Amino acid sequence: MGYFRDNIKKLAGYTPGFQPKSTGQVIKLNTNENPYPPSPRVLEAIGKLTGEQLRRYPDPTGEKFRKAAAKLNGVGPENIMCCNGGDDLLTIAFRAFCDKYRPVVYPVPTYTLYAVLAQIQYCRAIEIPFEDDFTLPDELFVSNAALTIVCNPNAPTATLVSKDALAELADEIEGVLLIDEAYVDFAKDNCAEMVKKFDNVLILRSMSKGYSLAGLRFGYAIGSAELIAGLMKVKDSYNVDAVAIEAATAAIKDQSHFRENVEKIKSERKRLTCELNKLKLDVGKSGTNFVFARCGNARQVYEELAERSIYVRYFPLEGLFDKLRITVGTAEQNDKLLAALKEILQR
Amino acid sequence: MGYFRDNIKKLAGYTPGFQPKSTGQVIKLNTNENPYPPSPRVLEAIGKLTGEQLRRYPDPTGEKFRKAAAKLNGVGPENIMCCNGGDDLLTIAFRAFCDKYRPVVYPVPTYTLYAVLAQIQYCRAIEIPFEDDFTLPDELFVSNAALTIVCNPNAPTATLVSKDALAELADEIEGVLLIDEAYVDFAKDNCAEMVKKFDNVLILRSMSKGYSLAGLRFGYAIGSAELIAGLMKVKDSYNVDAVAIEAATAAIKDQSHFRENVEKIKSERKRLTCELNKLKLDVGKSGTNFVFARCGNARQVYEELAERSIYVRYFPLEGLFDKLRITVGTAEQNDKLLAALKEILQR
Repeated sequence: MGYFRDNIKKLAGYTPGFQPKSTGQVIKLNTNENPYPPSPRVLEAIGKLTGEQLRRYPDPTGEKFRKAAAKLNGVGPENIMCCNGGDDLLTIAFRAFCDKYRPVVYPVPTYTLYAVLAQIQYCRAIEIPFEDDFTLPDELFVSNAALTIVCNPNAPTATLVSKDALAELADEIEGVLLIDEAYVDFAKDNCAEMVKKFDNVLILRSMSKGYSLAGLRFGYAIGSAELIAGLMKVKDSYNVDAVAIEAATAAIKDQSHFRENVEKIKSERKRLTCELNKLKLDVGKSGTNFVFARCGNARQVYEELAERSIYVRYFPLEGLFDKLRITVGTAEQNDKLLAALKEILQR
Repeated sequence: MGYFRDNIKKLAGYTPGFQPKSTGQVIKLNTNENPYPPSPRVLEAIGKLTGEQLRRYPDPTGEKFRKAAAKLNGVGPENIMCCNGGDDLLTIAFRAFCDKYRPVVYPVPTYTLYAVLAQIQYCRAIEIPFEDDFTLPDELFVSNAALTIVCNPNAPTATLVSKDALAELADEIEGVLLIDEAYVDFAKDNCAEMVKKFDNVLILRSMSKGYSLAGLRFGYAIGSAELIAGLMKVKDSYNVDAVAIEAATAAIKDQSHFRENVEKIKSERKRLTCELNKLKLDVGKSGTNFVFARCGNARQVYEELAERSIYVRYFPLEGLFDKLRITVGTAEQNDKLLAALKEILQR
């Protein structure tokens, strides 16, 4: 008997995007971080923390944040669960819903962590290719899986599936539909209201992108009170810490900073899309804070950009060999990226 | 098919100790928090955080903390894994080592979360009563489980098993021995050096008790490079956040604050033990920051203390009906507890 379970022994593990050590001259457009700082209210809240708050266990359910997130999404606090980043919710969901006899299904290409979590939980992962226009494949509606995940908007394709299609899917399937809305802050609409109609819909939200808090690890779930209560039993008792609860609550309450920040990114996204298309990089519409570009020699372009300390994301995966995922940066960062691409592509 | 797996549906879930909302007049000796604030270096480190650090993803492995913890424990950074509280490591260990065919074994009574995690992972939990003197039961050595857990010093009994006995256990068993040293900062010795001799030993440490950082959620694992590398594949990519890495590193580097704090608690522990024994509460030797008291009418005493806003821990569990677990507080808190107990018991 080995120390580890066989599925863990075989596991390659998830590879997070490269994090360069020096932050000096680097232009980092590879992990979909928000290029602008979080609300000043966040640092204020962190600055007010006392030794007493650190000494004591945090509120196990983060009621302060739950109330703020509930208000924003038009639901009750009982419909919200705080998580240590969106990934924490994904891990909890696999542990709560899936096992050897209860598979997960999701359209691909998508967030590669789903496959890793399925392997850890040792459940079957049914991967169904998106339709060519990135609408939901028919097989998704009849899969009979315990857990269906749709990343919407999707990573790395940046595409958005309609709310009607997702409502139809929720209605059709027997199991839970987890809509991973990590990037939804940059889309024109979201599915929060669906949890009132469908008791099998679970929505994942992240504070990492729209609220510029990737360093903080804070996300949350929206779902029926029953789903949330069940997931609460599976999460670590104190999964979010006292500092993170204060900081995330301050961030979500400052909606005017949030909206301004998101609008800046949307406007840069538009410009970047347009300029990349001029360079024949074939970029589609994006509902996220990144763009998905087709580029014949993607790997080479990725490497030549890296030599210039400009990092974008290249996935050495079937179907993605000719693609680059590029985070929308500040106007200045985008300009430098575009200038470098011009040099590289027009040689 | 229900939404949840059957084992999750049946799960009662872990109940964290009661957290009173108001902190005013309350004396909280029920969750083993450190009564003194953390090192001033911690608030300093938190105060220096920038929006840039919050905006970007944290270091996935928390190298800064790993190095500091490695130095302190006489091992290399490759022998350390940062965790979102000690509970995070327990969850990761169950997911990495246990399943339907790979049971967990541990002596009882102990930390009740082990049983909950076994139920979530759907693995068999073999619970073996401690010997009457709280030494390790013989059956533990021949259980053939994938994971053996020994909480040392143990909660809620506060007792300590010898290093020799643990080394013998590590040598004897085929699977992994997880020594939960969450409370070891208050004991006279620890097992860190065992990881050099035994590649199957995994040690859990917490920053919650000795370093007064329960609110921060930070713990770490010490183990062979192979064990740590395997567990790294199972943990969430960014399980500890940028703020927590800074704060925990500042805390672990301030060993003089730490030692002073621990000595104060040990000295109060001695006094509290002595005074409780005078009240005929029958308190044994403790290697932790709490004492374990025998008390005929434990439940009633617990309730009468709560009426006076003094909270201790009572476990409504087989074998613990006549016990109270009391966290060592400040001298002032302990005085108030003793005065209240005198009133209650001598009526």
